[in-house]
Amino acid sequence: MSEIAGRTAIIEGAKYLEKTYGGRGVMLGAVPGCEKAEVVILGGGNAGTNAARMAAGLGARVTILDINHYRLAYLDDVFGSQVTTLYSSRDNLLKSLAKADLVIGCVLLAPGREAPKLVKREDLKIMKKGAVVVDIVVDQGGCFETTHPTTHADPVYEVDGVMHYCVANIPGAVPRTSTEALVNSTLSYGITLTKKGLAAACKDDPGLMLGLNTYDGKCTFAAVAEALDLEYVDPATLL
Amino acid sequence: MSEIAGRTAIIEGAKYLEKTYGGRGVMLGAVPGCEKAEVVILGGGNAGTNAARMAAGLGARVTILDINHYRLAYLDDVFGSQVTTLYSSRDNLLKSLAKADLVIGCVLLAPGREAPKLVKREDLKIMKKGAVVVDIVVDQGGCFETTHPTTHADPVYEVDGVMHYCVANIPGAVPRTSTEALVNSTLSYGITLTKKGLAAACKDDPGLMLGLNTYDGKCTFAAVAEALDLEYVDPATLL
Amino acid sequence: MSEIAGRTAIIEGAKYLEKTYGGRGVMLGAVPGCEKAEVVILGGGNAGTNAARMAAGLGARVTILDINHYRLAYLDDVFGSQVTTLYSSRDNLLKSLAKADLVIGCVLLAPGREAPKLVKREDLKIMKKGAVVVDIVVDQGGCFETTHPTTHADPVYEVDGVMHYCVANIPGAVPRTSTEALVNSTLSYGITLTKKGLAAACKDDPGLMLGLNTYDGKCTFAAVAEALDLEYVDPATLL
Amino acid sequence: MSEIAGRTAIIEGAKYLEKTYGGRGVMLGAVPGCEKAEVVILGGGNAGTNAARMAAGLGARVTILDINHYRLAYLDDVFGSQVTTLYSSRDNLLKSLAKADLVIGCVLLAPGREAPKLVKREDLKIMKKGAVVVDIVVDQGGCFETTHPTTHADPVYEVDGVMHYCVANIPGAVPRTSTEALVNSTLSYGITLTKKGLAAACKDDPGLMLGLNTYDGKCTFAAVAEALDLEYVDPATLL
Amino acid sequence: MSEIAGRTAIIEGAKYLEKTYGGRGVMLGAVPGCEKAEVVILGGGNAGTNAARMAAGLGARVTILDINHYRLAYLDDVFGSQVTTLYSSRDNLLKSLAKADLVIGCVLLAPGREAPKLVKREDLKIMKKGAVVVDIVVDQGGCFETTHPTTHADPVYEVDGVMHYCVANIPGAVPRTSTEALVNSTLSYGITLTKKGLAAACKDDPGLMLGLNTYDGKCTFAAVAEALDLEYVDPATLL
Amino acid sequence: MSEIAGRTAIIEGAKYLEKTYGGRGVMLGAVPGCEKAEVVILGGGNAGTNAARMAAGLGARVTILDINHYRLAYLDDVFGSQVTTLYSSRDNLLKSLAKADLVIGCVLLAPGREAPKLVKREDLKIMKKGAVVVDIVVDQGGCFETTHPTTHADPVYEVDGVMHYCVANIPGAVPRTSTEALVNSTLSYGITLTKKGLAAACKDDPGLMLGLNTYDGKCTFAAVAEALDLEYVDPATLL
Repeated sequence: MSEIAGRTAIIEGAKYLEKTYGGRGVMLGAVPGCEKAEVVILGGGNAGTNAARMAAGLGARVTILDINHYRLAYLDDVFGSQVTTLYSSRDNLLKSLAKADLVIGCVLLAPGREAPKLVKREDLKIMKKGAVVVDIVVDQGGCFETTHPTTHADPVYEVDGVMHYCVANIPGAVPRTSTEALVNSTLSYGITLTKKGLAAACKDDPGLMLGLNTYDGKCTFAAVAEALDLEYVDPATLL
Repeated sequence: MSEIAGRTAIIEGAKYLEKTYGGRGVMLGAVPGCEKAEVVILGGGNAGTNAARMAAGLGARVTILDINHYRLAYLDDVFGSQVTTLYSSRDNLLKSLAKADLVIGCVLLAPGREAPKLVKREDLKIMKKGAVVVDIVVDQGGCFETTHPTTHADPVYEVDGVMHYCVANIPGAVPRTSTEALVNSTLSYGITLTKKGLAAACKDDPGLMLGLNTYDGKCTFAAVAEALDLEYVDPATLL
Repeated sequence: MSEIAGRTAIIEGAKYLEKTYGGRGVMLGAVPGCEKAEVVILGGGNAGTNAARMAAGLGARVTILDINHYRLAYLDDVFGSQVTTLYSSRDNLLKSLAKADLVIGCVLLAPGREAPKLVKREDLKIMKKGAVVVDIVVDQGGCFETTHPTTHADPVYEVDGVMHYCVANIPGAVPRTSTEALVNSTLSYGITLTKKGLAAACKDDPGLMLGLNTYDGKCTFAAVAEALDLEYVDPATLL
Repeated sequence: MSEIAGRTAIIEGAKYLEKTYGGRGVMLGAVPGCEKAEVVILGGGNAGTNAARMAAGLGARVTILDINHYRLAYLDDVFGSQVTTLYSSRDNLLKSLAKADLVIGCVLLAPGREAPKLVKREDLKIMKKGAVVVDIVVDQGGCFETTHPTTHADPVYEVDGVMHYCVANIPGAVPRTSTEALVNSTLSYGITLTKKGLAAACKDDPGLMLGLNTYDGKCTFAAVAEALDLEYVDPATLL
Repeated sequence: MSEIAGRTAIIEGAKYLEKTYGGRGVMLGAVPGCEKAEVVILGGGNAGTNAARMAAGLGARVTILDINHYRLAYLDDVFGSQVTTLYSSRDNLLKSLAKADLVIGCVLLAPGREAPKLVKREDLKIMKKGAVVVDIVVDQGGCFETTHPTTHADPVYEVDGVMHYCVANIPGAVPRTSTEALVNSTLSYGITLTKKGLAAACKDDPGLMLGLNTYDGKCTFAAVAEALDLEYVDPATLL
Repeated sequence: MSEIAGRTAIIEGAKYLEKTYGGRGVMLGAVPGCEKAEVVILGGGNAGTNAARMAAGLGARVTILDINHYRLAYLDDVFGSQVTTLYSSRDNLLKSLAKADLVIGCVLLAPGREAPKLVKREDLKIMKKGAVVVDIVVDQGGCFETTHPTTHADPVYEVDGVMHYCVANIPGAVPRTSTEALVNSTLSYGITLTKKGLAAACKDDPGLMLGLNTYDGKCTFAAVAEALDLEYVDPATLL
């Protein structure tokens, strides 16, 4: 789903940059002779890489920030001169925000853990009026201080002149593609669960066990337990 | 402006393919493991080429139809294996419509002349439900029988299960970029007109003369005169 | 050798698609204005990736099917909009076969194990007449029910209107390149074996030990033993 | 048809480089770690450009020779670092032949005129044994001294250790694609001829008139008349 | 020669950006995680396009300024998202200078005419300290107010903290390549002149006539005559 | 730093290929119609990959030699037909040297260990006069028998007609970029060291411990100890 969210985030960002929807009225890739928009992507993981591909594909100037040098080097191998990779220091972050037309936030420390609040409320003041931020990880707390989950029915709000798109379920916009992707990833697990039942299936497949979040009323996933302040119980002791 | 319209058409098409807006719920470029959307572009001119670049950039499967072989060969040089170029016969058109998720119409015979109605009302029946058509030349009559101009306030309507996006002024969505592009193209003419006045400026610059649509109550542009059934007067006889 | 087989498979496929050799008479990449051929590649491993590169290089429309999402995502990173990656469900397989001009089979569960028979005899009926299949893993049983090994002297046969190219030793067609590739991979082992003798060399190098198929009349490679129903003996106990 | 001939020439060249067919036994693009084959293309026109695209797509090292600097610069724009463009002096030609695995000849002075014999009989002596030449313009005399037309039934012969592929009708190998391409280019002329008759159609369309080779027993195409030593008659005086 | 000058200009610019030579100490394409240098190219003609290709190839962020929209659109076709094309207004020029690490000047109004002084002395004040300018057209007056011709022996000087590289004969640095390029372009003229003599050769070949700068003590090339305030004489009247 | 050294090595190589600096007087990527320079890169690791990207970006013909097949295959995936990958046998090495204009040496067996002397003194005799070698690993002994460390103040010397560029601290030429890169990689370690002190910081972070070269007068890094013939002491026993 993070691939779908990353790619769709660029389409949503392009839309809300239109004047009609409250944005600055700029095109991501512009046209020959006009300044291209600057897209800044916080986090070069799965979602960020997919967002970068779309933004570069539309002709925008793209900058990806991350702290993992190996990941930045891989992105440089794959994208070549189409994107700029930048170490995610506070200084580089602020410089990038100041020139950005569109910021995609997709930084996670680990699945299930709360996202770090990289962009502070006061940082919005250095951004252009009518710029757009899309917070892909808003469902895990978001990486902007000013984001909170919204819905497809009412997807955006404005803070300090910056449009915020924070739909918690971005893939819901393209259910046909999302369902196909989800089934690709989960169908074999579903068949196994049907055949063997939950306990046996988890015992036989450590990968499936890793995905068990609750069992018998207990929280069996450490990061979720920590984030929600619940007691964590090792699933192996319950099955 | 045709470059802006061509590029923006893909963003609008992607948006209205979302389930939220009535479309099929597919992503143009999908994600690894899922079928990509098919984008069909009618006309490989300026607008069509720009639309193709955006659609290919988003990872869709793109087909461009045109009848000019030299243009198709140039597009093949520039895009390589990223797009399919196809001779625009009636047969190829119908096959393309049947598989399309998004159709961009941008066929013009000549500036000012009415666009040919390539897609008939009954052709919509062979299209997928929830597919989207964008008619870039709707302001010159459109190249779909079923299109009529709409506005940014109320941009789409549905005919036979196919969403129609027919905003007559697509560049109005991105006024900052559009204004910059327009000024780039016209500023030097504006300065000349201010300095010399209309008549002298046109006499001195045959390029400017070619752009003169009316003068002294007469229609001085042949294609417009023909399209609107007005008398055409050679501007050289009036100035 | 799988790289050579994968790349050469596309050249052989292109050849047998010629009318002269019994195929449909289509060019893989066609020319501007004509429909490109559809190439379907079963398995995105080493052979499949190399086949995809050649097919995309010739301008064909390429689809790769695999069940490993990480592999599909890597292929999407590397190939971008040049290929479609598709999850290898039975449903996607049948849809792909129906539109294919050329199918390359290169699915292996593991080195030495028999290949899965993904394409059934009856599946050929939905394919186009004159389409071509190339079975790269025919020497490990093949991934088509209808394939059996052939030779460079008599490489193809036809079943239900579909041409089958099943040369068990594809790299033999390009011995100069194949020998160079083989020597690159094996020369250092050969020198070690000459210097130390088999037993000592295997003991010193676990990688070499892994390649030992038989020793002292026993089968020392598990997958081969299983495929041929022989007793497996751990080579460490023999040396 | 020159596009089809240019693209197919690379497939045929790849085939006859196989040991099975008498060639050197090398793969055009080789595999990682092995030397790529060298493809030399004489003439950077329509056929040569299409041949270059295929050869580069297969991963070969490609050199295009031509004397038109604007054409070489355009090819450099479009292909970038994928091909080497080289001025077609006798010296560069000989150096290129000496390292070539595959030579594609596609030099024409003008449609209908005899091709220049760029490669002499003695030049073959500096070529590698088992190299392949493909003469795309053999039907207009050929650009090798040693080529003469062959057929799909018996396509190749050997001179001084060099395989010669000289099928005069290369597009005949892929009739489905060729027919589609031919119809794309000629259908509108055919319809006009049917409606108006030959004389009227040619009078109304100077482009069609340019294609008239004979009329009323006279040769009405200057280059053909010169090449075949016939009297040329201006078609305008006959219709 | 303008192609050689354009390409070499980037190498020279990269060199003088090194701290060792007085520059800012930045790499054009930087490395993953570091900000790329900004290269600004004034003029998108032959020299500028070749400079852009090199700069993009090294991974820099590249902006090309020109006033010809058709040229900008062609550059956008060929370079895609690798460069930004920008209309060359005074405003865009100043914004570009302010962020530039390297500026390549290659604007000519016409061969032989003096170059326009686009960059004024005071404009240097908004540039970064240690930035580099390369003036490719310094031999035709230069497009910076502060440039004057230098030599390979003493190629650079500094004005207001900006390094100026203004070698009038850039191709002289790579004589082997330059000689080959020059011979490619001129050999056929040389042979003609030797065979026919100057007067006859010019009469027979209008292209050669166009290159005649002086004859019988008269200036026979209009732009040069105007630039040097000499009397222009039509060469046709002298030969 | 190896990324910076690899990329900068190409710029330095291009410079010393200029006639002005004693080189052959060739441009790396030449211009359309002229032979491109051949760049040979010994070692496809981090430095070599970055060198290859720059050389291919400038349009040169690039060959990378390495003995790791997986690495060569990855480079082939990423660079496609832009570079040739070649197994690093002695035979391939000599053939590559004979045609090279520029050779980049960047082979390391392991960090801290002495580099292997791949290129012997007598090998220079088969190279072109005026060719350039750049030894990136000269600070670890170099991979040419004839290299020894030089400085930015006096960077090159000539042996047997071949220019040697052997600055031990290449990144020092671009201190702004190098400092940024270094800080990106080390700042977090610096902060940890400041907070915790050396011993505690190393105990808490095995990665930091791995970087400890000396402690309390002992050599705590095995490869350095071996290369310099010092006693190695396990740092864990000292802290």
